[in-house]
Amino acid sequence: MAKIGVLLSGCGVFDGAEIHEAVLTMLALDRAGATIVCMAPDVDQYHVVNHLTQEEMTEKRNVLVESARIARGEIKDLKDVKAADLDGLIMPGGFGAAKNLSDFAFKGAESTVEAEVKRILEEMSAASKPIGAICISPAPLAKALSAKKPEVTIGNDQSTAEAIEAMGGQHKTCTVDMIHVDGANKVVTTPAYMLGPGIKDVAVGIEKLVHKVLELAGG
Amino acid sequence: MAKIGVLLSGCGVFDGAEIHEAVLTMLALDRAGATIVCMAPDVDQYHVVNHLTQEEMTEKRNVLVESARIARGEIKDLKDVKAADLDGLIMPGGFGAAKNLSDFAFKGAESTVEAEVKRILEEMSAASKPIGAICISPAPLAKALSAKKPEVTIGNDQSTAEAIEAMGGQHKTCTVDMIHVDGANKVVTTPAYMLGPGIKDVAVGIEKLVHKVLELAGG
Repeated sequence: MAKIGVLLSGCGVFDGAEIHEAVLTMLALDRAGATIVCMAPDVDQYHVVNHLTQEEMTEKRNVLVESARIARGEIKDLKDVKAADLDGLIMPGGFGAAKNLSDFAFKGAESTVEAEVKRILEEMSAASKPIGAICISPAPLAKALSAKKPEVTIGNDQSTAEAIEAMGGQHKTCTVDMIHVDGANKVVTTPAYMLGPGIKDVAVGIEKLVHKVLELAGG
Repeated sequence: MAKIGVLLSGCGVFDGAEIHEAVLTMLALDRAGATIVCMAPDVDQYHVVNHLTQEEMTEKRNVLVESARIARGEIKDLKDVKAADLDGLIMPGGFGAAKNLSDFAFKGAESTVEAEVKRILEEMSAASKPIGAICISPAPLAKALSAKKPEVTIGNDQSTAEAIEAMGGQHKTCTVDMIHVDGANKVVTTPAYMLGPGIKDVAVGIEKLVHKVLELAGG
């Protein structure tokens, strides 16, 4: 039974992991018989956004603690997970990937990736284990693995695609029901809520991504 | 196209709505072509639980604001929703249903239901529109509609079942892949994470519940 990591970045699309994308990933993994290993870095969120008003709130929240909501408490501190523990890794999207796992939302092509996130991505790549990235997560992925020039998709947003290319990635336009597979790098990506519009639409690409990651993990 | 309300109680199993159950409900509704109307009461959560440690945190959160995370911001204040706006209503579970939408977690059979929650449940029932309740949500539902003696399931937990009976409900034992249908009251329930064990298991009952609510909504 494949052990697949799910790297979370908080709990909520505007300041953390996109909840639907995370849950759909877990559903597809469980249905395929995989073991799910949720994880998140033990760092403060960049900020907290009121999801009703989209205004910033004056409080602090921790990425690992909030990610534990999606994981129902079954989650590991990312620093305690090694590539040797996993057969594959999937990063759901949400602004958390671009605010907490990296600062791509603020610095674009000049962004940096959080140290433990960079470490696990580099380890997975070095071990030739598959990585799936959903929605905006291909951006930090492209930055972390820029030396490998990974092919990724975030859909069709031109400025995001240009930033990914500037970081060393190769952007491929896709629709929400598609995945892009970089076979050489074992990188699988899908646009999800970068395109939407609804949960049933993003589920199509996410299920394909999960199945492809599992196929590459078994190879 | 049926308009189905999804009544949320926060964002996280230990102090709010169970995230998987809420997302699986939305997925099944969207796939069936229904319009999803998320809603939550504008009240403080009973408390905030650190989902990593399960310890109480010294902060305040609002049920509507946190529920908006699951709804991606597309959510209504429950007080602004009338039964006339809906063809059916579904309550996902999580401790929020028993801590925020009612105080069943603390007072059992002596519990009361939050005023706006009671109001919408009574309106739906009076209008003979279907109500689905998942996991622990059948408990506040049984309390709110005790005069109708609704048949519900929360799985097989004896003390919870006894409390439901003491509030006027009629408890029916079910497994996680089952729903119980009270045809006279148009009430549909499924145990979900009252039994678990995993997301693929609870998805089976939740999909059946959604389809039955839609069938009753169209009748």
